[in-house]
Amino acid sequence: MMKPSLPQGTRDFGPDVVRKRQYILNTIKSVFELYGFQPLETPAMENLETLMGKYGEEGDKLIFKILNNGLDNPAKEQQAREEFEKVLQGKNTKSITERALKYDLTIPFARYVAMNHNQLTFPFKRYQVQPVWRADRPQKGRYREFYQCDADVVGSNALINEVEFVNIYNEVFQKLKIQDYELRINSRKILTALAEIAGGLDKMMAITVAIDKLDKIGIEKVKEELSQRGLSKDQIRVVENYLDVNGTNEEKLSQIKNLLGHCENGKKGIEEIQFVVNTSSDTKIETQNPIIDFTLARGLNYYTGIIFEAKAPSEVKIGSIGGGGRYDDLTGMFGLKGLTGVGISFGADRIYDVMDELNLFPAAASQGTQVLICCIDKDGEQYALPLLQQLREKNIYAELYPAGAKIKKQMEYANNKQIPYTILIGSEEMQSGLLAFKDMASGLQEKLSAQQILQKLTA
Amino acid sequence: MMKPSLPQGTRDFGPDVVRKRQYILNTIKSVFELYGFQPLETPAMENLETLMGKYGEEGDKLIFKILNNGLDNPAKEQQAREEFEKVLQGKNTKSITERALKYDLTIPFARYVAMNHNQLTFPFKRYQVQPVWRADRPQKGRYREFYQCDADVVGSNALINEVEFVNIYNEVFQKLKIQDYELRINSRKILTALAEIAGGLDKMMAITVAIDKLDKIGIEKVKEELSQRGLSKDQIRVVENYLDVNGTNEEKLSQIKNLLGHCENGKKGIEEIQFVVNTSSDTKIETQNPIIDFTLARGLNYYTGIIFEAKAPSEVKIGSIGGGGRYDDLTGMFGLKGLTGVGISFGADRIYDVMDELNLFPAAASQGTQVLICCIDKDGEQYALPLLQQLREKNIYAELYPAGAKIKKQMEYANNKQIPYTILIGSEEMQSGLLAFKDMASGLQEKLSAQQILQKLTA
Repeated sequence: MMKPSLPQGTRDFGPDVVRKRQYILNTIKSVFELYGFQPLETPAMENLETLMGKYGEEGDKLIFKILNNGLDNPAKEQQAREEFEKVLQGKNTKSITERALKYDLTIPFARYVAMNHNQLTFPFKRYQVQPVWRADRPQKGRYREFYQCDADVVGSNALINEVEFVNIYNEVFQKLKIQDYELRINSRKILTALAEIAGGLDKMMAITVAIDKLDKIGIEKVKEELSQRGLSKDQIRVVENYLDVNGTNEEKLSQIKNLLGHCENGKKGIEEIQFVVNTSSDTKIETQNPIIDFTLARGLNYYTGIIFEAKAPSEVKIGSIGGGGRYDDLTGMFGLKGLTGVGISFGADRIYDVMDELNLFPAAASQGTQVLICCIDKDGEQYALPLLQQLREKNIYAELYPAGAKIKKQMEYANNKQIPYTILIGSEEMQSGLLAFKDMASGLQEKLSAQQILQKLTA
Repeated sequence: MMKPSLPQGTRDFGPDVVRKRQYILNTIKSVFELYGFQPLETPAMENLETLMGKYGEEGDKLIFKILNNGLDNPAKEQQAREEFEKVLQGKNTKSITERALKYDLTIPFARYVAMNHNQLTFPFKRYQVQPVWRADRPQKGRYREFYQCDADVVGSNALINEVEFVNIYNEVFQKLKIQDYELRINSRKILTALAEIAGGLDKMMAITVAIDKLDKIGIEKVKEELSQRGLSKDQIRVVENYLDVNGTNEEKLSQIKNLLGHCENGKKGIEEIQFVVNTSSDTKIETQNPIIDFTLARGLNYYTGIIFEAKAPSEVKIGSIGGGGRYDDLTGMFGLKGLTGVGISFGADRIYDVMDELNLFPAAASQGTQVLICCIDKDGEQYALPLLQQLREKNIYAELYPAGAKIKKQMEYANNKQIPYTILIGSEEMQSGLLAFKDMASGLQEKLSAQQILQKLTA
């Protein structure tokens, strides 16, 4: 007899966790809808060639490939054997694995847009909340199957889209009651300008990689790294001045203007940030976000304009709970050139951890059954059935414990399932028409008619 | 440049389809919740050994296996080569494929219960709405990735559970406004009794398989098949008499009592059906269902008591849109013996087709953005932003077309997205504070203040 187990890095979600996760995902989805984004769902599997080569060498290795069915065809045995040699060399072959599990939601989205662009209305605003799979080494907070929650606008270069995303971040975290989160904002154009005046564009990667580590390794180590990467003392001083920019958003903007305002990319980047910061704070949402952070770099090379990062409240050591930015060419790899877009993502698993740690889930988020009807015997069961249906007609989640079990067991069931109310029906109750209605939290019990119970629960 | 495509048998769901599918799935989920069922989610991938051998030889072949990562390890090259020979012989090996995509929701549910039974509260009522994957040959209405919607109660042999499932079927189809659907009911015990008096228990499989085909091949072919399977003329006559049972539920019960009421299994089966039919029709739901159908067999061998099948309205030629029944041993294969249960399933894809064909989706089911704000220029955009947020605060899905596009283009956008209202903001509107509010369906346009628009849309 086998002892069943789960694949490493995957999880079952029991009732309580599913409900809390749904609370987060539904909040995010409802805000996306409120802002005019439309839902899209793509299959779990994509053709292997759609995914390969899109995530860098390391990413490619983490793609789960699906073995073709029908490899036990004797006529093709020798061919399969030869093709398998490619797998042993770390190569891909359609003859063995034609399909793979999706690694993120961006590439399938790009594939969808490229395939359907003639039917789509641009600007196309879609959101997508689905699981993705990565053969990463499992560790705390890192899973092989996890959800991504993305929203993108493609086909519009208007900065108002970035403003909308700032508002979406603020609205989602406000609805989830996650206070003191930070929405940091920067522009890749500013980073480009910095590279231009500190060693040239070819140093941009080196500079952003080093800046990205500032939090972790401190300024001295960053300077060391820049020196190793070939920056001169003068150039390193420019980066240092850049990293010294501080104060309020206004103060930071004024300082960065002095540093980078004279070059084209710097000017553009500053204008963009200024517009997004001013315009988003014009809205009704009361918050200090976004916070300008010129040290924000975000690793992904394809960002070209405004970039975002949402950080968890500092009292929980979780870090990023979302991010995104503008890119210039989403679908070029699938033959549709020059489609600009901007998108953001929420880290649902991490948001769950933040809310769990800060106790932010409202009780209603995990509420299931509201009333359990308990009967002493089969007669009680028959008596209970019309009431059971009346409760449900009023949209009250209700269940009946199958007759025959001891009342103690039925009460344990209610407690374990955290059902707030029970109705007890014995022969006395059936005779009088007054049922024993119990508030499980307080332990208070009163005798009420079915009508009174219905009124009480719908009040 | 590659032309992107989708794997055979898989589908993208665009905005309109996602919304309609969600309408169906949310209706089903909400009824499950109303009846006290709790959500469960299991991973897409299971260990291969959890799945293999559970679906018969044909089923096993349809399981999608996931290629292990890291097969390009030179140290293990020779071993991998040898193990691949097993794959070529149609065998399974963990060294090549440790994991596989789930084939249904029942086996993962059984695995979950077996792993967690010490923490669960029984009777355990769970529902699960997730995709499953099968390497079936794709054809109309048959996909390689599709959703299953299951609900089960395990750990209770009370017939009241079967009654609840009848009510769930009725309530879901009533809420979806699918009229004239049929919920057919039978008991495997009745079929067992038939086999006992028509040739012995070893003929049960032959008899049920033949009966299952009655609709398709007619009575004469069924008799031929039974004869080939070794039934005598007398025995075939018994089956024929059984298949002749007809009339109302009461008439059928009275006829079947004459035929099978004298043997133990027959008596029990009749009692069960009688209880479920009488008790479920006692509830408030007005419907003629369930319909007793002694020709209902359902292929799956593991059913042992009441069985169900929900059939689409006869005007759409779609057949079964749901089914289920009682089983005696869900988790035995995972070492947890004797756990009885009863469960049902909804065929979401087919229900979608039924509703599409009969035009049953309410307009609200696919409604996205309700208002589009159109601006002539950037000033209008700034003017529009506070109104945009006010609309959203009232929970009205609203969006702003990025300024700069021609009004004609903006109106096309509204029409393509089927947005029912637009608000036009030009210099005149900003001066007067009276905005051009247009009902896109009627074409009527009126000048209203922002407050009047908000009132109108929330009325």
